[in-house]
Amino acid sequence: MILTILGCHSATPKTFHNPTSQLLEVKGHLFLIDCGEGTQVALRKSKVKFARIKHIFISHLHGDHFYGLIGLISTFTLLGREADLNIYGPKGIKEIITLQLKLSKSWTNYSLLFHELDSKISEKLFEDEKVEVFTIPLDHRVYTNGYLFKEKTGERKLNPKAAIEANIDKSYFRKLKMGEDVVNEKGQLIPNQQVTFPPEPPKSYAFCSDTAFKPEISPQIEGVTALYHEATFLEEHLHLCEKTKHSTAKQAATIARDAGVEQLILGHFSTRYDDLNLFLEEAKEVFEETSLAADYKVFEI
Amino acid sequence: MILTILGCHSATPKTFHNPTSQLLEVKGHLFLIDCGEGTQVALRKSKVKFARIKHIFISHLHGDHFYGLIGLISTFTLLGREADLNIYGPKGIKEIITLQLKLSKSWTNYSLLFHELDSKISEKLFEDEKVEVFTIPLDHRVYTNGYLFKEKTGERKLNPKAAIEANIDKSYFRKLKMGEDVVNEKGQLIPNQQVTFPPEPPKSYAFCSDTAFKPEISPQIEGVTALYHEATFLEEHLHLCEKTKHSTAKQAATIARDAGVEQLILGHFSTRYDDLNLFLEEAKEVFEETSLAADYKVFEI
Repeated sequence: MILTILGCHSATPKTFHNPTSQLLEVKGHLFLIDCGEGTQVALRKSKVKFARIKHIFISHLHGDHFYGLIGLISTFTLLGREADLNIYGPKGIKEIITLQLKLSKSWTNYSLLFHELDSKISEKLFEDEKVEVFTIPLDHRVYTNGYLFKEKTGERKLNPKAAIEANIDKSYFRKLKMGEDVVNEKGQLIPNQQVTFPPEPPKSYAFCSDTAFKPEISPQIEGVTALYHEATFLEEHLHLCEKTKHSTAKQAATIARDAGVEQLILGHFSTRYDDLNLFLEEAKEVFEETSLAADYKVFEI
Repeated sequence: MILTILGCHSATPKTFHNPTSQLLEVKGHLFLIDCGEGTQVALRKSKVKFARIKHIFISHLHGDHFYGLIGLISTFTLLGREADLNIYGPKGIKEIITLQLKLSKSWTNYSLLFHELDSKISEKLFEDEKVEVFTIPLDHRVYTNGYLFKEKTGERKLNPKAAIEANIDKSYFRKLKMGEDVVNEKGQLIPNQQVTFPPEPPKSYAFCSDTAFKPEISPQIEGVTALYHEATFLEEHLHLCEKTKHSTAKQAATIARDAGVEQLILGHFSTRYDDLNLFLEEAKEVFEETSLAADYKVFEI
């Protein structure tokens, strides 16, 4: 999994601060997560082939998470896109987009497939042979979901040398990768583990923004390879979290620790702080494996 | 009048190309004209005090002219704005903005005053003691207006030395500035022109984007101090103008010449051209006083 941070700041776009957007590359997919104003320019700056994006996941309908969506949709039209585009987000997102397309008489040349969400419990949104995507219901001022991206356990890896030594015909290799035992040319049953290696452990990424401290999400994100969790404030401004339904760096780290994740990435920083290292210090007191997001930073998960 | 080009390119925002937006400073007003995606960041980069903007004029509902509006409105809320904000634009703009504010539960703290337009003949939109603003109906794929900003003729300027020599009491100076003749302390009638200078000639600025070649606008913009006219294409792509309802550099220059304007500024360049000087060359063959717009360029009109 490769995670590109396109923007990780809260509230308003500024000269050197993009609002929330991320691109997750996993098993051949380019998943776009949130799409604040200017995301299409950030995508160009990142030099990713963003025409390959087929699924866009919007967490909630605050401007710093979706105002760039209509522009990206229009740009896809101008670029001659033909592939379907799936948009997952809160109920209402379809009306916002289609109203603007209608009034500008600029319908897309490609199919826009809206998947509007209103469930308060986790749902599976996408699945193919290699990846699943689920919602993570969060607690914010408006209806909000995080998203959980999970690789499926892959095939076992063939040990070609061992398989040949065990006199297994090549036509059985597919079965071996599927984890089955096979009979060799001498009629002997060969245990799968003798001639294969275990698959790579599946990776997973949880995106949680924006949300008040919500420990109830820990079981769902237990053991994920990487967790992005918003940290809008430091503990000294904990009182602001109650009103705005955001989290502190310490709260994000607490979630990471309790869920036993491998790695925590913090973002959605309030612009009131000049020194973002304070977030890192505060979080590391609770959970050591913490990093700060930064616009255009790339994480290999 | 000071005109700041915030963006002057057509279609999609790119790393170094902003879509259309301009800021016109005139007689204490900051008028924002069009507001493509990223305009609020361009305003920050220009270091203008954009909280002073009280009137925003949107030409039409194509994305490259208004997708940045909702973000700017939201940013004003976050910055604690209290002053009214007037938005002039095609019918439908109110629904687009209010739908997004409603779904994000983010009503503004200040009054948003929408002035929706659907007239096909020119209207006066704004007037105070010093400035008037009119629509310039244009010809595009959707309902579109340009805007004409006109200073009113100002007061005559007092010649203090001449006024004192003519024995005029100071209490009459106000009347002199208003252009009236006055009686001096000796009971003589003093002709106004003897003791005053004529006012600065009023300036005017016409913004015309986007539009097909429309010579009918020439009488309305006759003699303006500066005309911004779109030039999306060069003459070699004239055939594209018919389909897209845009203009060539030559057509823009023809309008400027026929309307007898003092200065022409070209913009809304298609991204298909690498060398924008070709626009300048083509236009200058018809109208010498032509300049090219460029993002962040400032014109003193």
